[in-house]
Amino acid sequence: MQKPLKIAVVGSGLVGSLLGIYLRRAGHTVHVFDRSPDIRTIQFSGRSINLAMSHRGWKALDGVGIGDAVREIAIAMDKRAIHLPDKLNFQPYGKEGESIYSISRGTLNRKMIDLAEAAGVEFFFEQKIWDVTLATSTLHIGESERGEWKDLQYDMVFGADGAFSRIRHRMQRQSMFNYSQEFLNTGYKELNIPANADGSHKLDKNSFHIWPRGEFMLIALPNLDGSFTCTLFMPFEGEHSFAALTDRQKVEAFFETHFPDSIEVIPMLAEDFFKNPTSTLVTMKCYPWTYEDKVALIGDACHAIVPFYGQGMNAGFEDITVLNEFMQQFGDDWQSVFKHYEQSRKPNADAIAELSYRNFMEMSSKTADEKFLLAKKIEKRFSDKHPDKWLPLYSRVTFSHRPYSEALAIGDKQNEIMAEVMDMANIFAIWDSEQVEQKILELLRESPLDHS
Amino acid sequence: MQKPLKIAVVGSGLVGSLLGIYLRRAGHTVHVFDRSPDIRTIQFSGRSINLAMSHRGWKALDGVGIGDAVREIAIAMDKRAIHLPDKLNFQPYGKEGESIYSISRGTLNRKMIDLAEAAGVEFFFEQKIWDVTLATSTLHIGESERGEWKDLQYDMVFGADGAFSRIRHRMQRQSMFNYSQEFLNTGYKELNIPANADGSHKLDKNSFHIWPRGEFMLIALPNLDGSFTCTLFMPFEGEHSFAALTDRQKVEAFFETHFPDSIEVIPMLAEDFFKNPTSTLVTMKCYPWTYEDKVALIGDACHAIVPFYGQGMNAGFEDITVLNEFMQQFGDDWQSVFKHYEQSRKPNADAIAELSYRNFMEMSSKTADEKFLLAKKIEKRFSDKHPDKWLPLYSRVTFSHRPYSEALAIGDKQNEIMAEVMDMANIFAIWDSEQVEQKILELLRESPLDHS
Repeated sequence: MQKPLKIAVVGSGLVGSLLGIYLRRAGHTVHVFDRSPDIRTIQFSGRSINLAMSHRGWKALDGVGIGDAVREIAIAMDKRAIHLPDKLNFQPYGKEGESIYSISRGTLNRKMIDLAEAAGVEFFFEQKIWDVTLATSTLHIGESERGEWKDLQYDMVFGADGAFSRIRHRMQRQSMFNYSQEFLNTGYKELNIPANADGSHKLDKNSFHIWPRGEFMLIALPNLDGSFTCTLFMPFEGEHSFAALTDRQKVEAFFETHFPDSIEVIPMLAEDFFKNPTSTLVTMKCYPWTYEDKVALIGDACHAIVPFYGQGMNAGFEDITVLNEFMQQFGDDWQSVFKHYEQSRKPNADAIAELSYRNFMEMSSKTADEKFLLAKKIEKRFSDKHPDKWLPLYSRVTFSHRPYSEALAIGDKQNEIMAEVMDMANIFAIWDSEQVEQKILELLRESPLDHS
Repeated sequence: MQKPLKIAVVGSGLVGSLLGIYLRRAGHTVHVFDRSPDIRTIQFSGRSINLAMSHRGWKALDGVGIGDAVREIAIAMDKRAIHLPDKLNFQPYGKEGESIYSISRGTLNRKMIDLAEAAGVEFFFEQKIWDVTLATSTLHIGESERGEWKDLQYDMVFGADGAFSRIRHRMQRQSMFNYSQEFLNTGYKELNIPANADGSHKLDKNSFHIWPRGEFMLIALPNLDGSFTCTLFMPFEGEHSFAALTDRQKVEAFFETHFPDSIEVIPMLAEDFFKNPTSTLVTMKCYPWTYEDKVALIGDACHAIVPFYGQGMNAGFEDITVLNEFMQQFGDDWQSVFKHYEQSRKPNADAIAELSYRNFMEMSSKTADEKFLLAKKIEKRFSDKHPDKWLPLYSRVTFSHRPYSEALAIGDKQNEIMAEVMDMANIFAIWDSEQVEQKILELLRESPLDHS
């Protein structure tokens, strides 16, 4: 058991709330601050992408016994439903019984705060933290950035305040702090597919729906109430872009041309398009993540990634799992807890950033490509037959607890092998033959994947 | 002629001062602000590396007729003097008559401010700019960051306030602003070789002296007064590191072992070592560099690089040359001036950042390598004979005005060719033969360097 400390967590999002529960369970006093109003008291929508909870997320929730409470608000998606212009393809995500889980961000966040409060975490909303004094883990709080501030001193401060973290902002001004933020030229906008009158879903409920169109794509994830939260990803500028869709007619014509089967299920298309903001997508990396035994960053505050692998929340939750393991190991030696935490997580945060960045291409372009889909079929066939020899990259990221960095490295080797397989003569005819299976086995003997 | 504006330049360093002169000559009212005292009134030393002015720098100075005034305080260096453990090698930088020029930063900065004042630029020292309102180009100035501020409104603001620019700091908080800062694990420390009693130099005056030792190196650049400014580059941590040199004995033993011929010429070694700070080296990149027609970044404020190509000041001065060309071209359409300026300079800033980063390896390790030195000799021989076919990378960066991005691209092709040449059998014996020359000509025919 650790010596009880007074700990502040800045940010009442998913990571901040769950971290609060872990710290409280470890015996600490936990105060969570957020500049926004209590999300349980307000309408939250208009700029969110539904979450896709997978193994890493569930592990962190189950670690404090709240997984089942969250499962109640989650919908299993066991496959991609790929809406091509002329047909609908289904592509399973993993093996029989493996799914990712759609959860609305607002619903989950409300639930997490309820659970944290029940665990004894104290929340302080509409409290604006502007700065932190690192050496004394003192928060500076006030109405405005240039106004009067009060000091709140804690034994320790966690910055769980997201991609634009104020806590990190202070650390950035330290010497030797490495930092990068890079925006995509692609933005996104939330749209909505309402439920049928009887509360049922208008599209297959247990699918992650995707309309891949190259530079842009539409996705839809199911909600409990029968609706789907849709997200349109599209460049800001150019021929097919947010800048080009300037009025109702253009928006409707664009959807009729590119997403014809979406028209009848998105009745409020133009209204939502112009009401909801266009949001940006950023990859943020930094290092170090901690300051002595006083301040630590966690989640998006130290590794914001683009959403195309559905791993942002899962990676943040896994931070907590790992942090908790080191709390068990090092006890009151928080300096060691923090050092091991940041050293262990940094390469994995970089790896999932890279995988997420790459996956935009896969989702928006390749899922419409026959060759890519065939490669996935070959991979699935081989993996089903030789599960000890081949775990697909997607599964290693989504349905395992192996480090992201390992997934990235092994995935690169698998890509090389599949490129050779796809170069085989007449591959569309022989894809499910003994010959292809033997070829993969041979290539694996030549350069084994390291499953260590 | 442009319509006269009231322009603020933040930063009275080399780039800020020279930019002030250019803007003043274009008819504008120019106020230069600096948080430090007037450098002409204080002792400036202890953490500087001598500057190496080359073609790009001279062009910007000559463009407003102040090149000759600066030549008076510069010392030509036409070669590297490479201090190996057992001998001293000389390596010319370019063709006969081509030199880079050693100038002390303090001396040059004082001179530049004098010249700018003479041109009608107004300087305001010990004025702390904490923030800027981008939309109205208004500076916010005050004694302390949290204290009271006054507003100073201008038609336009330039941020020439260096790698840790406050002006950029505000731009960083805009959406879609890409930014990165990355520190090297190598730091540096200033040391000094004093003049002889008669005012002469203790080492060859017209050389850039370098003691390459792999992970670390010592350099020395001449000053007008007979002294040399030395800089020790070394990792912060590890076997040979600043962290390891904890007392006078260790420092002296380290220099005796690794730089034996430096001992007698650096009499105040231990004193300076512990008096002078250990400084960090950072590469900073960002984009965009401008905000509408209101605010622009220039020099280190938008592209800080490591010093290993001697191009930091030269690149900043070239920013001014290019900005001025677009001022001529677009006149009062400052939005176009700014757009063209940032679009033209960004790829070149990235290229010199990359070249500078790579050059640490070249300076610290390769200049001690026989094979590297032979390759340089082969290159020089071929280039002297076929100047139309081969300009060495160093010369294209240092003694030309071709874009840095072109230098990087052509340099990569040249490296490939030289690698093939160095693989020729018995190359140490045949290096100056007809055979080698023909080989290079043949490789150039196969893949021509694009000199467009």
